[in-house]
Amino acid sequence: MASAVTPREEDYSQWYLDIVKNANLASNSAVRGCMVIKPYGFGIWERMQRQLDDMFKETGHQNAYFPLFIPKSFLSKEAEHVEGFAKECAVVTHHRLMNDPNGGGVVVDPSAKLEEELIVRPTSETIIWNTYRDWITSYRDLPLLVNQWANVVRWEMRTRLFLRTAEFLWQEGHTAHATAEEAQEETLQMQEVYATFAEQYMAMPVIRGVKTANERFAGAVNTYTIEALMQDGKALQAGTSHNLGQNFAKAFDVKFQNENNKEEYVWATSWGVSTRLIGGLIMTHSDDEGLVLPPKLAPIQVIIVPIPKPNEALNAKAEELMAELKARGIRVQYDNDKKKRPGFKFAESELKGIPVRLGLGKRDLENGTIEVARRDTKEKSSQSLDGIIDHVEQLLEDIQNNLLQRAIDFREEHSHIVDTMEEFQAILERDIPGFIYAHWDGTTETELKIKEMTKATIRCIPNDAKEEDGKCILTGKPSKQRVIFAKAY
Amino acid sequence: MASAVTPREEDYSQWYLDIVKNANLASNSAVRGCMVIKPYGFGIWERMQRQLDDMFKETGHQNAYFPLFIPKSFLSKEAEHVEGFAKECAVVTHHRLMNDPNGGGVVVDPSAKLEEELIVRPTSETIIWNTYRDWITSYRDLPLLVNQWANVVRWEMRTRLFLRTAEFLWQEGHTAHATAEEAQEETLQMQEVYATFAEQYMAMPVIRGVKTANERFAGAVNTYTIEALMQDGKALQAGTSHNLGQNFAKAFDVKFQNENNKEEYVWATSWGVSTRLIGGLIMTHSDDEGLVLPPKLAPIQVIIVPIPKPNEALNAKAEELMAELKARGIRVQYDNDKKKRPGFKFAESELKGIPVRLGLGKRDLENGTIEVARRDTKEKSSQSLDGIIDHVEQLLEDIQNNLLQRAIDFREEHSHIVDTMEEFQAILERDIPGFIYAHWDGTTETELKIKEMTKATIRCIPNDAKEEDGKCILTGKPSKQRVIFAKAY
Repeated sequence: MASAVTPREEDYSQWYLDIVKNANLASNSAVRGCMVIKPYGFGIWERMQRQLDDMFKETGHQNAYFPLFIPKSFLSKEAEHVEGFAKECAVVTHHRLMNDPNGGGVVVDPSAKLEEELIVRPTSETIIWNTYRDWITSYRDLPLLVNQWANVVRWEMRTRLFLRTAEFLWQEGHTAHATAEEAQEETLQMQEVYATFAEQYMAMPVIRGVKTANERFAGAVNTYTIEALMQDGKALQAGTSHNLGQNFAKAFDVKFQNENNKEEYVWATSWGVSTRLIGGLIMTHSDDEGLVLPPKLAPIQVIIVPIPKPNEALNAKAEELMAELKARGIRVQYDNDKKKRPGFKFAESELKGIPVRLGLGKRDLENGTIEVARRDTKEKSSQSLDGIIDHVEQLLEDIQNNLLQRAIDFREEHSHIVDTMEEFQAILERDIPGFIYAHWDGTTETELKIKEMTKATIRCIPNDAKEEDGKCILTGKPSKQRVIFAKAY
Repeated sequence: MASAVTPREEDYSQWYLDIVKNANLASNSAVRGCMVIKPYGFGIWERMQRQLDDMFKETGHQNAYFPLFIPKSFLSKEAEHVEGFAKECAVVTHHRLMNDPNGGGVVVDPSAKLEEELIVRPTSETIIWNTYRDWITSYRDLPLLVNQWANVVRWEMRTRLFLRTAEFLWQEGHTAHATAEEAQEETLQMQEVYATFAEQYMAMPVIRGVKTANERFAGAVNTYTIEALMQDGKALQAGTSHNLGQNFAKAFDVKFQNENNKEEYVWATSWGVSTRLIGGLIMTHSDDEGLVLPPKLAPIQVIIVPIPKPNEALNAKAEELMAELKARGIRVQYDNDKKKRPGFKFAESELKGIPVRLGLGKRDLENGTIEVARRDTKEKSSQSLDGIIDHVEQLLEDIQNNLLQRAIDFREEHSHIVDTMEEFQAILERDIPGFIYAHWDGTTETELKIKEMTKATIRCIPNDAKEEDGKCILTGKPSKQRVIFAKAY
């Protein structure tokens, strides 16, 4: 049998880790907090990357690459930025090892101390804006629309595979604009790109909103976010897009000559999503049998299992089906291992979240049928081999849509409109708390007090929040719109 | 005018740097030895990556990702490996900064010292083989065919953009096999993949050969290489494929149960190419007007220039041509800048190495013609607009082939068969020395002595070297085959 998974009801955290481990997505490494992304997990990331990269290019961005290291002094140039990142960064202090003269193996060579320490990038605003100073002189150089795919390091003390790791992979867009309006448009455009990706590819519905001052990116004027709801009723911040105003341009003295020959500071945005998305993908769709993947991101979309085992006739039919499916751009594999029984293969394909399984037996061949099992609903049916390719293609689309709808329904069921602190707390005590729409007086003080009392944070002020007169659930002070509270990853 | 380039004859090194800078490929950064790869340069790397990645997958490899950091103790486990890399590595010693209590800004927090220092990976054999111990137990787990796209750091003292930088981007394949024979097959297969890529995509002919013991990768049993000849007559090692024997399996205790239920150490290979290839690409084809790019790797393959400037009729025709070219998968741009004159645009397109330029003027439209300029030979001709799409498609293929043939011819002209030390030295004193085929007695002592005398190194023993009785050019001792000497990057 394929390794089993702890049921969600029993231990949700363990269920998550079991899926990551048993579906061969990632593992912990010998380096504290750093993960190894295994080939199957990386296959999901590659598909995410490809799609996002296409979307970035369609919106006019180009890729570039900036150094891994940031001089310590750069971090300090933007006051809030250094506050945000200095406490959890990897610091390079030396550039050579040597044999211990006392025979203690290999040690750091004290004579190879760097003049200035280097920080392994936790994010690249500082090194990039230091570079943009050389790239930008005139309005003709703007907008500058650049993205980078990279690894970054934040020395987190508590880590969890994909969701929070010391090193993670991400993309970070860094754009420069001539006006505040353009920077704001770009910030919102990229939030929308992320939301579209989350919904259309990950089948993970998200709330588009803006962060409160307290939850903003260190150095941003405004941080826009997409927030998803996981199956345990906790929120996941899945991507952020920051309007940086002129903060980094001022810190790094990046000015341009505008059309009227006047010098101005440049306006900036930055935006990123990371391998954390894989954690969100797992927790949105998977079940107690294992991973469930939306077809658009599944490394393998269809698996064909010979029943009870491969033989010449079954192999020939499988080859034929594979060729036809591949011709439609469908990613298909044939599980022709002779040593494993079909039951084992079924469980394995469920654990790996393969959207469609085709069971092909001797009797099927005689009857011109094939067994089709879908991973999302676990429905099985016997289908005619005639037209099976069309059927599978349609089924993949249905599964993609069903996963999104199911996740939307789940979110609706676990979204609550609440007007008192009692209700608020009662909902947070449920097994699956969810999103809470409540009034808030707009102060950081109240926000922090509620967090301290309940562990719930303001996830965002939704972009589409309606104006509505209300009273802050904690202080009773007037409020003009509801914000979304939740416990969060 | 577009910025000019120093002629090769005047100062070859400056010519190279001028092209990198003026064609907007890369620049130095604020961090010693680390480069910024600009969007145009990164566009070339992306095309290289995509093609190589496809070739790796066609040969059965999958991508994965391993940590950036390597515990110091891991490096020491393979004795030669640590010798090779300890002297030039970035060492992380702390995980936090703090505000200087004496008001000196942000400083390293001494209380956040790591228990064990971490090395920023110079290459990943050690961390990967430490992981493979958990992945491999039986012959059924083999072969394990994994590749990683990553950044690595080697603290080089003398750096040059693309050719030698402290941080660079590369891919590193790490495979595990059940037998020595399979590992050797894989090593040679990947050398051949690299050679095919160099020749068919970069249009850069290479010699396939094996390194001498002295030039081997630290920890390898054998290092296979592809060696290219640059326009200044120096060799560039463009890619290497290592047969690692059981060295890393023994260092990290990675064993498997073979088909006869016996425990054995696993056999390994590793292989890599890096952003150094972009340096090789530049130095193989470019000229005194700027970059020359083979069409298969050019981010822009065709540029259309309106003459003397854009107008409605020219724009309409350009749009039509662009749509038709794009439909054939050709990467085309229209330079509709109104402020720059055609002469400037021509020079700029030459500097950027765009393979084909189409000049479209008012009279052309009347006559049904268009001016076609190819970057490689600088030939211009007037062509009928009828059938121009076919013509351009064919021309791109011709340019690709011509660049390869031209580079082969150059290499042939600068390859020398030499039997005495006098001849050997005379050739090395030429402006463009090239490859020297000479006999060598097979000892590291002689190899190093020749290097000391002449600065030339043995680039490789060619895979296809013929057996031939001869005498070592230095010692007169007997030799069975010629090896290739050259000055090298």
